[in-house]
Amino acid sequence: MNIGILGAGRMGGTLGKLWAKKGHEIFFGTRSPEKAIELSSGVNMRGGSYEDAAKFGEVIFVGTPWEATKPLLDSLEPLLAGKVVIDCTNALAPDYVSLLIPATTSAGELVQSWLPKSHVVKAYNSIGSGVLPAPDYNNTKATGFYCGNDAAAKKIVHQLIADSGFEPIDCGDLTQARHLEAMTLLFLNLAFKQNMGGKIAFKLLAR
Amino acid sequence: MNIGILGAGRMGGTLGKLWAKKGHEIFFGTRSPEKAIELSSGVNMRGGSYEDAAKFGEVIFVGTPWEATKPLLDSLEPLLAGKVVIDCTNALAPDYVSLLIPATTSAGELVQSWLPKSHVVKAYNSIGSGVLPAPDYNNTKATGFYCGNDAAAKKIVHQLIADSGFEPIDCGDLTQARHLEAMTLLFLNLAFKQNMGGKIAFKLLAR
Repeated sequence: MNIGILGAGRMGGTLGKLWAKKGHEIFFGTRSPEKAIELSSGVNMRGGSYEDAAKFGEVIFVGTPWEATKPLLDSLEPLLAGKVVIDCTNALAPDYVSLLIPATTSAGELVQSWLPKSHVVKAYNSIGSGVLPAPDYNNTKATGFYCGNDAAAKKIVHQLIADSGFEPIDCGDLTQARHLEAMTLLFLNLAFKQNMGGKIAFKLLAR
Repeated sequence: MNIGILGAGRMGGTLGKLWAKKGHEIFFGTRSPEKAIELSSGVNMRGGSYEDAAKFGEVIFVGTPWEATKPLLDSLEPLLAGKVVIDCTNALAPDYVSLLIPATTSAGELVQSWLPKSHVVKAYNSIGSGVLPAPDYNNTKATGFYCGNDAAAKKIVHQLIADSGFEPIDCGDLTQARHLEAMTLLFLNLAFKQNMGGKIAFKLLAR
């Protein structure tokens, strides 16, 4: 698939490389031309402006810092109509232990409201960037929880999560993003305050 | 340890039996004398009133339905002073997909506020009762997440979680109950709406 990455940081940058290795075509959108050039050096990867990334992708990955997300998506909204948008954001407060939005909504639902003509799927938001390149724990795959309102879009994201090495689990409609974003706070607390570090990950066990 | 169980339903009843097998002394508190007699039939187990269970336990397990919890704990409050209270409740709305309390607090924090002289530890709330007797998934133990404000109380609960076959993970102070209770909503959604059933469980992977 053609995937546009908005925000080629620790999450988007790493995921783009993983997907490129699986044969997907990646276009990294970034603010900095230098970074765009640097990111264009790999197979199946190129870089450029956010706008070009938005035009290029059938699937768009949103991994921007929360405060940058709305202005960027507002400006790209017409380009993203009809496309699958993977929302990886968390509305983290500066304290890293709380959210800037009430629990009666979620970053995922807000992103969907800003892009009413796109098909938003929440995914990857509670996965640490340090886990992305290594989702296996002694032959147990970490879970890639996702949710969204459009079945066809979720099917595509399900496959992309599998392609990146995680076990995809469909959590239902986009309101479930509230719980996936709460899990991010638990993750951050365990990583930083409980000193477990960033290599922890959630797994859904099933039998 | 001497453990008083308030609410000997699917959670408390099963956990009491697991702990009794490990040599702990269990006192099941219940509204029904018949049930109390029935629950007294095992080794290390006896049954009686809520009040007698509260008197008996060094550790008290609270597994009552949410709406019954405050009236019961208010009536037992003096008996529970200084004790370790394991709070397993979820303030579930009748729709099973939302909570009756705002996300700026948690059932765990409310229980602590009702029992200011007790040491409340949130635990077991996002574990399905069907998983309790079988926490092993192909040699991978499901996680028993817990949190609380008192280090000594948490140490005791840590051991009790291990005794029941789960891998105990300390999530920090009692505010983390907000996230553990959000995970319950995710669990219920996966079990019921996504049709994964009640035998699913969360695991924290670490390396």
